[in-house]
Amino acid sequence: MTRERLYLFDTTLRDGQQTAGVDFALEEKLAVARMLDGIGVDYIEGGYPGANPTDTAFFAQKHDFRHARFTAFGMTKRAGRSAANDPGLQTVLAARSDALCFVAKSWDYHVEVALGTTLEENLKSIRETVKAGVASGRETMIDCEHFFDGYKANPEYALACAKAAYEAGARWVVLCDTNGGTLPHEVSKIVSEVVAHIPGDRLGIHPHDDTGCAVANALAAVDAGVRQIQGTLNGLGERCGNANLVTLIPTLKLKDEYRGRFETGISDEGLRNLTQLSRMLDEILNRNPNRHAPYVGANAFATKAGIHASAILKDPRTYEHVTPESVGNKRRVMVSDQGGKSNLLAELKRIGIEVGKDDPRLTRLLNEVKARENLGYAYEGAAASFELLARRVLGSVPNYFDVDSFRTSVERRQKKGEWDTVCEAVVKLRVNGESLMSVAEGNGPVNALDGALRKDLGIYQPFIEDLRLTDFKVRILNGGTEAVTRVTIESADGNGDVWTTVGVSPNIIDASFQALVDSVTFKLLKSDAPAP
Amino acid sequence: MTRERLYLFDTTLRDGQQTAGVDFALEEKLAVARMLDGIGVDYIEGGYPGANPTDTAFFAQKHDFRHARFTAFGMTKRAGRSAANDPGLQTVLAARSDALCFVAKSWDYHVEVALGTTLEENLKSIRETVKAGVASGRETMIDCEHFFDGYKANPEYALACAKAAYEAGARWVVLCDTNGGTLPHEVSKIVSEVVAHIPGDRLGIHPHDDTGCAVANALAAVDAGVRQIQGTLNGLGERCGNANLVTLIPTLKLKDEYRGRFETGISDEGLRNLTQLSRMLDEILNRNPNRHAPYVGANAFATKAGIHASAILKDPRTYEHVTPESVGNKRRVMVSDQGGKSNLLAELKRIGIEVGKDDPRLTRLLNEVKARENLGYAYEGAAASFELLARRVLGSVPNYFDVDSFRTSVERRQKKGEWDTVCEAVVKLRVNGESLMSVAEGNGPVNALDGALRKDLGIYQPFIEDLRLTDFKVRILNGGTEAVTRVTIESADGNGDVWTTVGVSPNIIDASFQALVDSVTFKLLKSDAPAP
Repeated sequence: MTRERLYLFDTTLRDGQQTAGVDFALEEKLAVARMLDGIGVDYIEGGYPGANPTDTAFFAQKHDFRHARFTAFGMTKRAGRSAANDPGLQTVLAARSDALCFVAKSWDYHVEVALGTTLEENLKSIRETVKAGVASGRETMIDCEHFFDGYKANPEYALACAKAAYEAGARWVVLCDTNGGTLPHEVSKIVSEVVAHIPGDRLGIHPHDDTGCAVANALAAVDAGVRQIQGTLNGLGERCGNANLVTLIPTLKLKDEYRGRFETGISDEGLRNLTQLSRMLDEILNRNPNRHAPYVGANAFATKAGIHASAILKDPRTYEHVTPESVGNKRRVMVSDQGGKSNLLAELKRIGIEVGKDDPRLTRLLNEVKARENLGYAYEGAAASFELLARRVLGSVPNYFDVDSFRTSVERRQKKGEWDTVCEAVVKLRVNGESLMSVAEGNGPVNALDGALRKDLGIYQPFIEDLRLTDFKVRILNGGTEAVTRVTIESADGNGDVWTTVGVSPNIIDASFQALVDSVTFKLLKSDAPAP
Repeated sequence: MTRERLYLFDTTLRDGQQTAGVDFALEEKLAVARMLDGIGVDYIEGGYPGANPTDTAFFAQKHDFRHARFTAFGMTKRAGRSAANDPGLQTVLAARSDALCFVAKSWDYHVEVALGTTLEENLKSIRETVKAGVASGRETMIDCEHFFDGYKANPEYALACAKAAYEAGARWVVLCDTNGGTLPHEVSKIVSEVVAHIPGDRLGIHPHDDTGCAVANALAAVDAGVRQIQGTLNGLGERCGNANLVTLIPTLKLKDEYRGRFETGISDEGLRNLTQLSRMLDEILNRNPNRHAPYVGANAFATKAGIHASAILKDPRTYEHVTPESVGNKRRVMVSDQGGKSNLLAELKRIGIEVGKDDPRLTRLLNEVKARENLGYAYEGAAASFELLARRVLGSVPNYFDVDSFRTSVERRQKKGEWDTVCEAVVKLRVNGESLMSVAEGNGPVNALDGALRKDLGIYQPFIEDLRLTDFKVRILNGGTEAVTRVTIESADGNGDVWTTVGVSPNIIDASFQALVDSVTFKLLKSDAPAP
């Protein structure tokens, strides 16, 4: 059975850039484009040449993508000018790209109010823009802005805009839900009506997530015949974002109904790289990854409940709609006092520790976990600290270093109205018999302690050079005079690995230091640093 | 035209508690339940009595909800026991609740593998559990776990489970997509088939977000006839979360297709409180609100300057699918601060400060608030710090004391295997010309600083004797090297007053000290302490 081709169009670098706080630098655009090309995305919309210096520079370069068509975005020709006399259009036509995507109005109200022109002039502008694009030898497409709202207000005119683009030779006519307010049943209905006039393999969909339905709207459009999906990585985009390609790709590749009917450009290896790709984008943007993201989130295959955990042990498929490995993610059975031995066994198995169900050390570990959770430790959010604890109870973790003491101080004083802050820390430790003492300054006491702890670990220093602290969370438990502080630290290294450790104490500094020591120890363990 | 009634069932406190890192304390459960009742949610599932001490205590209390039915969750009767001899079931039946929700297997494979019982025994268990619930005089419902996967594997048996519950007298039979892998077109198809056997006004839907389609699946089920939706606030829940009621409620209340056909229990005022409610839940959980959340996110109605901005100026409706005010959110266009001013005026009026609309100090205050929020201050959760800021800009706050310097240190050292920690702080300040210097020890650096700051305030000491610190929250903004720490402190006094203050700095100690100073100053202000 032959499967139909479904095309994926990524606009992370253009529409995704509309996200508040997101502003890609040139090298970042390049890095993202390479990742997208690497997994097999069909079109990469790189930006709007002429609109800003970064985009202009990005389209002045020559790119050698293996798979993707590099696409320049622009506006359709202005009314009252010829294509040759529209400098904006000429800038886009001059860009080095394989394809061109022009945005056109298709809602009569917008044509008259926002553009201030006539409905007929707008159709003419669409036709001439498409012709100029095609004449330049590039694949040309039209984004019909506000198509769904326009169609609801004036179906004849919205359709006339789409048909004008199609008849003038546009490879793709893209139906945009610009305001993001259209619901799946409306997408189904309206696309079905459009498909009666324009073949589905010439139609695209561009949904936004303002009702939380962007992904479902893309699927509804495909079900109704559309064959190109526009979206962004991690659903980046203005307001609530665009359709999330990182969510759509696994659905299209793994779910029977779509896998059976469609072929995409995404390779199986690309699919397995999806989790890493999603996190690399967050890394570039310095955002915390969404732990609950479908397929790729750190919690997407995490189970807390005891009743589910024992079933997962028996057969993971009973509680997983796809396998985590298929998208490069991992299963996680969280250790918490809600679960018992089976959670623990499952988690141990996942991290590669085999223990018999009746091994007495298992009971010891369970009791240790429960006792510590009673003190305020939370291992479900600190897998690295859990692994250290488990390996200590069950096997052995080398005693890489011993801390003898630490000290940190913050001093802030006012002199003639000027404030001056000094924050420093001293850590004294022993490595392999050698006594080492380091001092560091920092933005805050934990930052200073982190600096001092990692400044000189003797023979272990090379193993921790690429370690860095990426997140720090504090939660006060109990409250009042009995208050205890739980600190969770997230660390990362050059391999792109991320791990989380926890510390608990009435003293926030002490809790932080515990989590820091666990992080360094875990890094040494995972780097196979030799025992002293 | 009469509209059909659509019921909303919130499971934030039960299924939402399955979220990694979420563990509600008793008072937190109470606070969330009150918020849910306040907006008009129909059912509040409070937890699983008997499963843990918090839930047991929550269901031992008597609750007076204005609107919502308080619902206890539990498992259906075990095979091989009578209802009277199943202690788990009896615990749930003994809970103080208006309604009961029992989870039952409906996937033949799970019955045989996970439960290890026969298909017929499972049906019997469903029937007897429903009868026991109904006999206890409470509205009883059954969650059919894995209904969709079960239906795909063995439609007759999945349906038999649902019918067994319905025929035994269950008020609601809830179709659960437990693994979250079902897509909207499958929900449509399967629900349509179920509705041929069980009336839609006896059916519920319980979707999960593993394909990013939970909201769309809930809508698809309603379109196919279901009349109860189960979901959580902010989409909290295991793995990728449950259907987000905060997204669904505005769609059901504001979008023509749903508003015209259905009536919900949510009041218009409840809808306007939705943004605040969503953020309060994050505040309770110490999570950063999702800025891109549909309807309620800080960016949900934000437009970055560009092609859309001028159109929004001309007519906001052209780029907004609903009005931000309808859900208590705000438009963010970087052009007009009119909205900002009116909010500010309302807030000032609320705290008893009257200012004219055209008073130039109002603009100054607005600019000051904006500049500080840009640095990371959040006044929404720190009303006392806001009031101090406002009174400083608009009127005057006496300069009760000046801090010259503070210093805090934590030292921890190991001696013969015993750890010893010393944590102390020194604060130097001037009150009414007098220089005062105090030192204190504490559990942690902030506790020590708090002690030193309040040890001797000279003539003001009597005013602060009853002040105490009741909560302390830390949030890291930005993350990475640009990280800034926001500390929020809650204080209380002998009158039962509670107030919240905020501090922001790259240094956690400095941020904490700012919040401490604001707290003491606010206490002096509200106690009418005389100016020096």
